[in-house]
Amino acid sequence: MTDDTILLGHGSGGRMSHELLEKTILPALGWDESDHESKVLEDAAVMHITADSLLAAELVSEGDSRIAMTTDSFVVSPIFFPGGDIGDLAVNGTVNDLVMMGAVPLYLTLGMVIEEGLLISELEAVLSSVKTAAEAAGVSVVAGDTKVVERGKADRLFLNTAGFGVVPSGRTLSAAALRPGDVIIISGTLGDHGIAVMSKREGIAFETPVVSDTASLAGLAAQLFMSEAELRALRDPTRGGLATTLCELATSSNVGIELDELAIPVKPEVARASDLLGLDPLYIANEGKMIVVVAPEDAERAIHALQGHPLGGDAAIIGTCSDDRPGRVTLRTTIGGTRVVDMLSGEQLPRIC
Amino acid sequence: MTDDTILLGHGSGGRMSHELLEKTILPALGWDESDHESKVLEDAAVMHITADSLLAAELVSEGDSRIAMTTDSFVVSPIFFPGGDIGDLAVNGTVNDLVMMGAVPLYLTLGMVIEEGLLISELEAVLSSVKTAAEAAGVSVVAGDTKVVERGKADRLFLNTAGFGVVPSGRTLSAAALRPGDVIIISGTLGDHGIAVMSKREGIAFETPVVSDTASLAGLAAQLFMSEAELRALRDPTRGGLATTLCELATSSNVGIELDELAIPVKPEVARASDLLGLDPLYIANEGKMIVVVAPEDAERAIHALQGHPLGGDAAIIGTCSDDRPGRVTLRTTIGGTRVVDMLSGEQLPRIC
Repeated sequence: MTDDTILLGHGSGGRMSHELLEKTILPALGWDESDHESKVLEDAAVMHITADSLLAAELVSEGDSRIAMTTDSFVVSPIFFPGGDIGDLAVNGTVNDLVMMGAVPLYLTLGMVIEEGLLISELEAVLSSVKTAAEAAGVSVVAGDTKVVERGKADRLFLNTAGFGVVPSGRTLSAAALRPGDVIIISGTLGDHGIAVMSKREGIAFETPVVSDTASLAGLAAQLFMSEAELRALRDPTRGGLATTLCELATSSNVGIELDELAIPVKPEVARASDLLGLDPLYIANEGKMIVVVAPEDAERAIHALQGHPLGGDAAIIGTCSDDRPGRVTLRTTIGGTRVVDMLSGEQLPRIC
Repeated sequence: MTDDTILLGHGSGGRMSHELLEKTILPALGWDESDHESKVLEDAAVMHITADSLLAAELVSEGDSRIAMTTDSFVVSPIFFPGGDIGDLAVNGTVNDLVMMGAVPLYLTLGMVIEEGLLISELEAVLSSVKTAAEAAGVSVVAGDTKVVERGKADRLFLNTAGFGVVPSGRTLSAAALRPGDVIIISGTLGDHGIAVMSKREGIAFETPVVSDTASLAGLAAQLFMSEAELRALRDPTRGGLATTLCELATSSNVGIELDELAIPVKPEVARASDLLGLDPLYIANEGKMIVVVAPEDAERAIHALQGHPLGGDAAIIGTCSDDRPGRVTLRTTIGGTRVVDMLSGEQLPRIC
């Protein structure tokens, strides 16, 4: 029955677009009737952000307001995978990019490119994940857009989220801020997201199923900021994995980074699956983990803050920065050797996010 | 030569992604070396927007700062068409959505989904249009993202732009603000964009070539705001055309809108092409025109302000609002009859933006 699938006309901007919006998209996102009438047909969302409200929320000091913006497109295949779907991935990915810059995420926009023929029930399921993830992260989806392309001109559903947040006074995190002696912490186990998507795509069943770690890092980061540890940088190791992200940090800050392979947390089932698939967990995408770079004297305080949060139970110190081999990441392997860790070259896992 | 096309590895997040960013994307967008080093590898862009700077720019009054956000995905086919390409379309489309809410556009984000095999020279051409259009509109592209999907899983290039702006004090435009007696103005000729894309796509050559009207409306709107005419709403009639947009306004404000067909400006070559293609210019997408709804006593002042700008030379009063038939748009036809104008139903021109 054609009513159940997306048709080209749903992207026309005309009556069918309105019906899709009113009957499917807005209810699934949880916008209520008054939202429909007052905001839906405007060209942009308008929000009041007064200096007073930011001051009251203790987000800024007098005269200081920095905003953060970011964007991410999501083309993950398949769009539903163990532990999540493209909807929560799109919310968490953009929320986390804001959080990594020290921002409190406030607003998201949502752009959808839909392939003709997608089941409307699938769209509803994805949007329901968007709603749940946005609520969990404390952000509002304030503007959206829907385009439809012919069969074979996209792959079911692509999402884009752009995010807006406010950076509280005094937080200055940067990929260029690492110094020799700084300590590298990872907030949890590596590789869960990539293996979950890959196993679903390839139809591989493992004895212990691997689920994506997709999650908002806003709460975990808030815990960390409250600890008042001296933080240099936060980064979420998504595409390219821990290895690529650390290479970027080492290059930006011109420091060497020395990792201890034994200290890097990887779930046994992820390690086995990686072996089977010929992948290295250091290069596999994560969607709910963060790298924390902290001044040496505050490393314990940071670990303590992370471990006190449900998402940080496996947090571990995995390395240190040095003035040796600036720009390079090296790994002390389990068998006692040392090897250089380079950026991901080529495409290890396409369309993982 | 494979170096000349986009490969899956360019979307990996690893070394090839970095090279594409450093060698192609950032130079084409005009980011300089210092931008590369300081900002490119961060997860989000951080901008200083202090209350003081907004006050100094006379954008807000004490205690009042409203922000506007919007997003749009662009899937136009073909990506190059007479008068523009997907790059300037993506900048202008989002800039215009901000402008229609009375906002001064400040920042854009840019998300790209690229089909494997796109020529890098084509990507450069599109990004060069992004740069030029952003400069013309006075906005900065502050954050971006690149994804690559396999051949046949997208259609060359999809873009998403999200926009952020500040709404100056006292501007309250809304689709729900129309009142009986208000005057409807269109800033120029209808249908140019849709016909330009359609003629390119179908390989139709007209005696007088039709070019897209894609343009930023920021300058034209600024002229209008300076006139201090009492404005109710601004809207850009993109997908669905003038007819659909006016239906939305009539519904939101619960007023009737009466149009005068003779007064609606359409270029002769667009009228001929529309006839040939069986299309109605009232439903064809525009990408550089705006509908202005103004209090009756200020209609002349608004027309004068529009006509004084290069983009507003053909501005014309095309109708009025009434308390007759609330929610309905009617057209006095050239032959003296009256017909109801409804929203676009179905898909008249797929993938026009």
